[in-house]
Amino acid sequence: MIEVGIIMGSKSDLPIMQEAADALKVIGIDYEITVVSAHRTPERMYDYAKSAHGRGIKVIIAGAGGAAHLPGMTASLTALPVIGVPIKSSNSIDGWDSVLSILQMPGGIPVATVALNGAKNAGLLAASIIGASNPAVFEKLTAYKEELKEKVLKTAVEMENNKL
Amino acid sequence: MIEVGIIMGSKSDLPIMQEAADALKVIGIDYEITVVSAHRTPERMYDYAKSAHGRGIKVIIAGAGGAAHLPGMTASLTALPVIGVPIKSSNSIDGWDSVLSILQMPGGIPVATVALNGAKNAGLLAASIIGASNPAVFEKLTAYKEELKEKVLKTAVEMENNKL
Amino acid sequence: MIEVGIIMGSKSDLPIMQEAADALKVIGIDYEITVVSAHRTPERMYDYAKSAHGRGIKVIIAGAGGAAHLPGMTASLTALPVIGVPIKSSNSIDGWDSVLSILQMPGGIPVATVALNGAKNAGLLAASIIGASNPAVFEKLTAYKEELKEKVLKTAVEMENNKL
Amino acid sequence: MIEVGIIMGSKSDLPIMQEAADALKVIGIDYEITVVSAHRTPERMYDYAKSAHGRGIKVIIAGAGGAAHLPGMTASLTALPVIGVPIKSSNSIDGWDSVLSILQMPGGIPVATVALNGAKNAGLLAASIIGASNPAVFEKLTAYKEELKEKVLKTAVEMENNKL
Amino acid sequence: MIEVGIIMGSKSDLPIMQEAADALKVIGIDYEITVVSAHRTPERMYDYAKSAHGRGIKVIIAGAGGAAHLPGMTASLTALPVIGVPIKSSNSIDGWDSVLSILQMPGGIPVATVALNGAKNAGLLAASIIGASNPAVFEKLTAYKEELKEKVLKTAVEMENNKL
Amino acid sequence: MIEVGIIMGSKSDLPIMQEAADALKVIGIDYEITVVSAHRTPERMYDYAKSAHGRGIKVIIAGAGGAAHLPGMTASLTALPVIGVPIKSSNSIDGWDSVLSILQMPGGIPVATVALNGAKNAGLLAASIIGASNPAVFEKLTAYKEELKEKVLKTAVEMENNKL
Amino acid sequence: MIEVGIIMGSKSDLPIMQEAADALKVIGIDYEITVVSAHRTPERMYDYAKSAHGRGIKVIIAGAGGAAHLPGMTASLTALPVIGVPIKSSNSIDGWDSVLSILQMPGGIPVATVALNGAKNAGLLAASIIGASNPAVFEKLTAYKEELKEKVLKTAVEMENNKL
Amino acid sequence: MIEVGIIMGSKSDLPIMQEAADALKVIGIDYEITVVSAHRTPERMYDYAKSAHGRGIKVIIAGAGGAAHLPGMTASLTALPVIGVPIKSSNSIDGWDSVLSILQMPGGIPVATVALNGAKNAGLLAASIIGASNPAVFEKLTAYKEELKEKVLKTAVEMENNKL
Repeated sequence: MIEVGIIMGSKSDLPIMQEAADALKVIGIDYEITVVSAHRTPERMYDYAKSAHGRGIKVIIAGAGGAAHLPGMTASLTALPVIGVPIKSSNSIDGWDSVLSILQMPGGIPVATVALNGAKNAGLLAASIIGASNPAVFEKLTAYKEELKEKVLKTAVEMENNKL
Repeated sequence: MIEVGIIMGSKSDLPIMQEAADALKVIGIDYEITVVSAHRTPERMYDYAKSAHGRGIKVIIAGAGGAAHLPGMTASLTALPVIGVPIKSSNSIDGWDSVLSILQMPGGIPVATVALNGAKNAGLLAASIIGASNPAVFEKLTAYKEELKEKVLKTAVEMENNKL
Repeated sequence: MIEVGIIMGSKSDLPIMQEAADALKVIGIDYEITVVSAHRTPERMYDYAKSAHGRGIKVIIAGAGGAAHLPGMTASLTALPVIGVPIKSSNSIDGWDSVLSILQMPGGIPVATVALNGAKNAGLLAASIIGASNPAVFEKLTAYKEELKEKVLKTAVEMENNKL
Repeated sequence: MIEVGIIMGSKSDLPIMQEAADALKVIGIDYEITVVSAHRTPERMYDYAKSAHGRGIKVIIAGAGGAAHLPGMTASLTALPVIGVPIKSSNSIDGWDSVLSILQMPGGIPVATVALNGAKNAGLLAASIIGASNPAVFEKLTAYKEELKEKVLKTAVEMENNKL
Repeated sequence: MIEVGIIMGSKSDLPIMQEAADALKVIGIDYEITVVSAHRTPERMYDYAKSAHGRGIKVIIAGAGGAAHLPGMTASLTALPVIGVPIKSSNSIDGWDSVLSILQMPGGIPVATVALNGAKNAGLLAASIIGASNPAVFEKLTAYKEELKEKVLKTAVEMENNKL
Repeated sequence: MIEVGIIMGSKSDLPIMQEAADALKVIGIDYEITVVSAHRTPERMYDYAKSAHGRGIKVIIAGAGGAAHLPGMTASLTALPVIGVPIKSSNSIDGWDSVLSILQMPGGIPVATVALNGAKNAGLLAASIIGASNPAVFEKLTAYKEELKEKVLKTAVEMENNKL
Repeated sequence: MIEVGIIMGSKSDLPIMQEAADALKVIGIDYEITVVSAHRTPERMYDYAKSAHGRGIKVIIAGAGGAAHLPGMTASLTALPVIGVPIKSSNSIDGWDSVLSILQMPGGIPVATVALNGAKNAGLLAASIIGASNPAVFEKLTAYKEELKEKVLKTAVEMENNKL
Repeated sequence: MIEVGIIMGSKSDLPIMQEAADALKVIGIDYEITVVSAHRTPERMYDYAKSAHGRGIKVIIAGAGGAAHLPGMTASLTALPVIGVPIKSSNSIDGWDSVLSILQMPGGIPVATVALNGAKNAGLLAASIIGASNPAVFEKLTAYKEELKEKVLKTAVEMENNKL
């Protein structure tokens, strides 16, 4: 069952947003992925956000750059948790515009913002949200973090032995 | 006939946005003023923007603070010119969030952005847009700029005579 | 049953963080609230984060200012979703330090960041995370957003009638 | 009849400013395009701005980088609407100088500022200003936005079918 | 003989700009002081800058806030050295707009920029420019710096003796 | 005897952090170098910091990028001086995140922060800390600075003779 | 014996810099405190820095605001460790100038920078530098951190019992 | 006779600083050019600044990057006008450090700051300072500005004729 919807403002965001999909695959969570533009397809955004809960979606991940309105507008249209991914697009001022127009939402309409281009973490955060009520997912995430630790420990040994 | 619609994301924006109304009054242009929240009343924003042209509105002035989505979303819903007023609200990071989330619109959906808290200039810009096709308004604006000049010249004389 | 843990780096953060608690009360979600300092009580932070899931906590909300390490370090110690609230403390550089040291987490360890001083939204985001798997909470949040809309519409009528 | 004047501070701005011209061509609005430097040809700027309305120009688009004074100075010399395009020139500090020296105009002298390097949107904004009083242009702009939507919808289908 | 012209964009800049006048008085250099607005009195700015050298002015000090065009435009109209004072006016974004729109002049048209609100230093810099070719002024400036040193040394003794 | 511990959050930081090691070699101070990740190996960080003093370490140099928690967390776990190196990693916002999340530590837990990517200076600072109580090291550092001076003087002669 | 020299660019920095002195008092380390201005008393700065080591000083703490050159210039004149305290003075741009002109030292001349207005941490860092070679000081610092922990734990109990 | 001294903190600054020399050549003003490092050769800086006036130097141009102390320290050591050129060196944070540590000088010690990497304008500003008391230089600068104008006018004709 599809539990996470990944949307982005433009197909040029796909190389970044694919990392969210990849993270969900690693944890074993089904997702859908498509383009929804707040500015060019506002009705589609409306329909997507309004219908998501009814279709079984539990978390929406929305990525956008510049004056990035997609995450916040999606959050205004649903009570589901919405994760925002600020993207450093070509028309961005060093990414500050993307970050601030997603992060600084007014009281009442939260967006869970991750780092600039942080789509991988958006996928993991979606997994942790599902895992909050799903012990199997929680265990997979815990194991995932354990693997991260093992990799660092292996690297540490290599560096201490002058093999890097 | 009402030619300018002034909208704002919250009633707390009124002290700033009233300056847009006051500027329009000086030039003699009729306006309407109300609250439309992109995040709390998305359907209302949709209806407002979609119906504006049919009701005779020629310019929309939209003010908002923080992750300010109202000007850009309104611009996405109409072919009318939309003027955005970034407001330094209490939850703002020195106004940078308001400025960047209004200014940095993607290609295809322009917003005419004015200075932080620059509602007065938004009113004057709306007048100049109407004046571009209306000689009487153009003349009033020209006279308005002449008055600004006269005030500065009067101040200059006072300062040169040590009366300031 | 307590489902949300609210922690903060210093008791001086309480006036802000109380808004997270208040938001949870409105939705009817039980929470605990206390001080956990990443820098002054690292062992306590370790124990808090490691034990949270076992005690039934589903979401942790962590607020901190300046070089704000509490949210990110907590996220490194648990697979639960962690919401970070950047606080504009007295030793902050306009809040940029708090925002960036919470938001810009490395790949693998996400923190769901909300706006500067956005503790109210942190509470609502925690509710939406719980609501993703709990229809009753989802309904309450939907009703909450409906109330926000009603308030705006009422304000709009007042402004249109020149009563503001 | 030429309705839009496009000016820029240096010929090195042409690759960006050409996008304004191209957008006007798409909508079918005649324009002129030339170099006017606020700092190196102040008299020429004076003459250009003062004569524009008499020559039938309805909107001026002015692009400049660094300490970008051309848009604001032009706006001080005419009651026509002036659209400012901040350009990220080689001597710019990440574009912040261009943006702020165009956007932050004092009360009385508005400039309609678009995004950094946002010349395309400047062209579309000029069209919407003309369209405010010209139903045929308004219709063309409405159709243009419809096309943007169609392109996004086509991309969405491709992404959903894994063809991207 | 008046050797320094002090101009400012608005009479509200006088409390800051007076410090330039006071510094010149200390060194014993005659000056004139008045209001010249780049945006509201462009012709006056033109005449002031064009006539300054002929009237015996050797240095122009120009202060302005926000999108501060007065120093740069004055520099474009004369070969005299122009000192720019960025002013943190009420419509400024923390002073960044004033600083960048004065400092970041294009190649060919320099402005000698001093610190935000640094009018005192503008006066001293004007004195040092005159002193470069005037030994008496150079000596007075050297003595002025000696006095600054004496004051610090006196303060140092007080602090070392716990009298502060 | 190893007196300096160099740690970094990721092996990708090694090209920068190696400069700290090289500087220590020049002064003749023994060091160890390894990977310790605050977020992926929090227990290892705990053990490293807690055991350092007992193992004879006098200074810890910690480098990290993005939301850089390693230096501050290490400082919270030991009374040894900790030098923080902000690294401009690929997921950084121009380095501001690394700088602010290391520099802006709360009262009680200092980190000695050096410039962005300033690992060479971190090595020299560690040497000066050891040199504060070790005359031989102090002499070597003094000689090192003398060499820097000689190199500049040699370059100056070359430039004055047009050989650059 | 005096082991730490505290210097500041102006007596107006004393309220901040006194916190460095107070922290040293708590740990029981003798210090001297005075005014040394890089810009107004360059010879005094030269003499202070050159003579410090010979007088038994082990660490210099230097505080300054705006274009803050005192810490870096002092570091250029001695091989002792120099701690820089960026001060948010009245002529500062939000403190960024003080921070960057202390932190961003070139390779070869490190300054150990602490947080904006972080004089308390400068005192503690000086203590930790002395403690690196002095077990008694190391123990006092360890006890100091233990006290910080106890205070937080006490506060935590109060908050959990709703007494805050 | 040599009237301008050009100094820079490092030979790596030469490609930028050469533009100051070239501008002076165009106007026909003699200069000297060399390396003087505030941090690596503080005594040399002291001697250079103290002796400059006696050697007939009328203006000093000082370029530096990062925590750029050379212009300000030179200004503290002489009553001659000092022009500061902020250089975007490799260890700079987007040039902000260079700009702020040169621009934000305290009251009493001005530096005439030009744009980031603006060495050409530093040369022209030095010429205008000399020209303030030297009619021949003033005329050459006036002619230079006339040439800039002619070049723009020629470009304008080419663009209007579609030859660009």
